[in-house]
Amino acid sequence: MIYTSAELENKINLAIAELNFKNEPNSLFAPIKYILSLGGKRLRPILAYMATNLFSDDIEKTTSPAIAIEMFHNFSLLHDDLMDNASLRRGQPTVHLKWNASTAVLSGDAMLIDAYNYISKVPENVLSDILKVFTTTAMQVCEGQQFDMDFEQRLNVKEFEYIEMIRLKTAVLLAASLKIGALLGGASKKDVEQLYDFGINIGLAFQLKDDLLDVYGDTQSFGKEIGGDILSNKKTFLLIKALENSNEKDNATLQKWISAKNFDTDAKINAVKKIYDELNLDFITNKLIQKYYLAGLKCLSEVDVSEDRKRELLIYTNNLMNREK
Amino acid sequence: MIYTSAELENKINLAIAELNFKNEPNSLFAPIKYILSLGGKRLRPILAYMATNLFSDDIEKTTSPAIAIEMFHNFSLLHDDLMDNASLRRGQPTVHLKWNASTAVLSGDAMLIDAYNYISKVPENVLSDILKVFTTTAMQVCEGQQFDMDFEQRLNVKEFEYIEMIRLKTAVLLAASLKIGALLGGASKKDVEQLYDFGINIGLAFQLKDDLLDVYGDTQSFGKEIGGDILSNKKTFLLIKALENSNEKDNATLQKWISAKNFDTDAKINAVKKIYDELNLDFITNKLIQKYYLAGLKCLSEVDVSEDRKRELLIYTNNLMNREK
Repeated sequence: MIYTSAELENKINLAIAELNFKNEPNSLFAPIKYILSLGGKRLRPILAYMATNLFSDDIEKTTSPAIAIEMFHNFSLLHDDLMDNASLRRGQPTVHLKWNASTAVLSGDAMLIDAYNYISKVPENVLSDILKVFTTTAMQVCEGQQFDMDFEQRLNVKEFEYIEMIRLKTAVLLAASLKIGALLGGASKKDVEQLYDFGINIGLAFQLKDDLLDVYGDTQSFGKEIGGDILSNKKTFLLIKALENSNEKDNATLQKWISAKNFDTDAKINAVKKIYDELNLDFITNKLIQKYYLAGLKCLSEVDVSEDRKRELLIYTNNLMNREK
Repeated sequence: MIYTSAELENKINLAIAELNFKNEPNSLFAPIKYILSLGGKRLRPILAYMATNLFSDDIEKTTSPAIAIEMFHNFSLLHDDLMDNASLRRGQPTVHLKWNASTAVLSGDAMLIDAYNYISKVPENVLSDILKVFTTTAMQVCEGQQFDMDFEQRLNVKEFEYIEMIRLKTAVLLAASLKIGALLGGASKKDVEQLYDFGINIGLAFQLKDDLLDVYGDTQSFGKEIGGDILSNKKTFLLIKALENSNEKDNATLQKWISAKNFDTDAKINAVKKIYDELNLDFITNKLIQKYYLAGLKCLSEVDVSEDRKRELLIYTNNLMNREK
C-alpha cells in the first residue's frame, strides 16, 4: 500500500504528540514540547516515510528515525534562532525569548541527544549505516549554519559558495531523510544513492524557492511578511546575484541600503526589489530552481521501482516546487 | 598487561592530539581544537581504559569511545561556561569570550555530534548497548546542569536534591566511562553494573571533594583561587549544609553575603568560611566523601577479577580522593 503525504503527515504528527518527556526538570523539557508543538510541514519525516514506502509496505520502523530527524531539525531551528536572535518561529515567540538564552542552549542540546535516542532505535542490521548518515549529515548542517553566519560579514559571497552553503544547511538533511528511509525499506545501494541525490537537488530547489518567495511571494498565502530577508540583509541567492550582476549605480544603492541603520522598511524593500526586477532575478532564480528540480527528477527516474509506487513522492515534490508558502 | 594511569593519560592525549578536523569553516572547528588543547585530567578516558583493562589486555578498541567521552565532557564544559558566563577555563579564556556566544553554541553542537561520531566506532556487537549508555548518560548530564541552574534561584535546596544533582551532572559520566570500558573488555553483566555503581560512588565523592577544595584547598596546589564558589554563591554541599544547619544569626549573615552586591571579596570569603568552620563542615564533608568512597570500593571488590588487575584502578581512585587540586 502506498501512503499519501496527508496520511504520513498525520502519522508523524500523532507520533510526535505521543512522545513522552520526563516532568523534571520542567525547565529543560517544556521548551522541547513547545517547539515540537508549533507544527511545520513535517517535510523530512514525510520524505523518510515515502522513501521506505517506495520499497516496502511496512513503514512502521521508519517512525522512530522520522522522529529523530524532525527532532534534529527542530533542535537546529532552536539554536539557529538563538544565534540569529530571531523573535518569531512559526508565528510564535522563539524559545530564547519565551524563556531565556541558557534554556535555549540546554534544551537544544537535550533535543540533539534525544534525536540520537530515536535514531538508535532502528533494526540492528542497519543501525551502523544509519548512524553514519545521521552523524555526517548533522555535522554538515552545523557547517552550513557556520558558513551562513560567516557570509553575514561578507559582501562578496559567490554563487557557488552560496549553493554549497544551502547544500549543507538545508539539502543534506532532506537527502539524508530519503536515504535513511530507503535503507529501512531495504533498497539497493544504487537506489539509496539515487534517492540521496534526488534529495540534494530538490533540497537546493526548495531553498531557492524559499529565497524567491520572500520577495515575490503572495503576502496572504506566504504566511509571513514579504521582504523579511531584504530587511535583515540576509545573503539570499537573489541578493548575491544582485550584488554580482548590478551596474555601479545599483550596486551602490544596494550597499547603501545594506548599511543603512534607520530607514523606512517599505522604502528599503521597494528599492531592493526594484533592482531585483531590473536584473530579472525572478526569472533567473526560477530557471535555477527548474534546473535542480529536473536534475532531481532524473535521479528519481533511475530508482528501480515501478512508476505507481513513485507517484505520491512525485506529487509531493511537485507541490513543494509550486508552493506559494 | 596492566597499564598505569600515566601511560593511559599519555595514550589519550596522543589520540586527541592526532584528531583531524576539517579546515573549513575554521570558525566552527578552531574553538573545538582550542578547548581540547587546554588539557585537563582526562579522568573519564583513563577510567574507560582501566575498565577495559580489568578484563582484557587489548585496550585499543577503547580509544575511540574514550575520545567520544572526553569530547562530550568538553562539549558540556563549553556550553556550561556559556550559560554560567564563566570567563576562564583551565586558566584560559572561555570560548564564548575568545570568540563569541554564537560560536560557543555552534562549536559545542559540533562537538556533541562528533562525540557520537566516535562513540559509533565501537565493534558492532556492543554498538547498540554502548549507544544506549551514552545517550542515557548525556541526557542525565543535561538534566543535572538544568537542576544546577534551577538551584541558583533557590535558598532551600535540600541535601538529597544536591546529591541527585551532582549524581546527574558529574557522577553518571564517570560511571558510564567505566561501564563502556567494561562492555568493551567483555565483562559480565554483573561486573558491568558493579563498575557502574563504583563510578557513581567515586563520582559523588569526587564532586564533594571539589566543593571542599574550593574552601579548604591549598591555594598553591589547587591551582585556582580559593573561595570562587563562595564568591559566586554556588550552591555547593557546604553552602547547602550551612544554610540548613546554621543558627538564626549565622543564617542571616549567610543570606546577607549571598545578596550583597558590592563587597570586599576577602571579607566575604572569610565571613562565610568562619561559619563553615563553626559548623565543622570540613569534617562533615570529609565524612560523606569517605562514605561514598568506601561504598565505591565495596562495589569494586565484588568485580570478579584478580586483585592485581584491580591495583592500578585502586591507586588511581585513591589519588583522586586524596588530591589537593
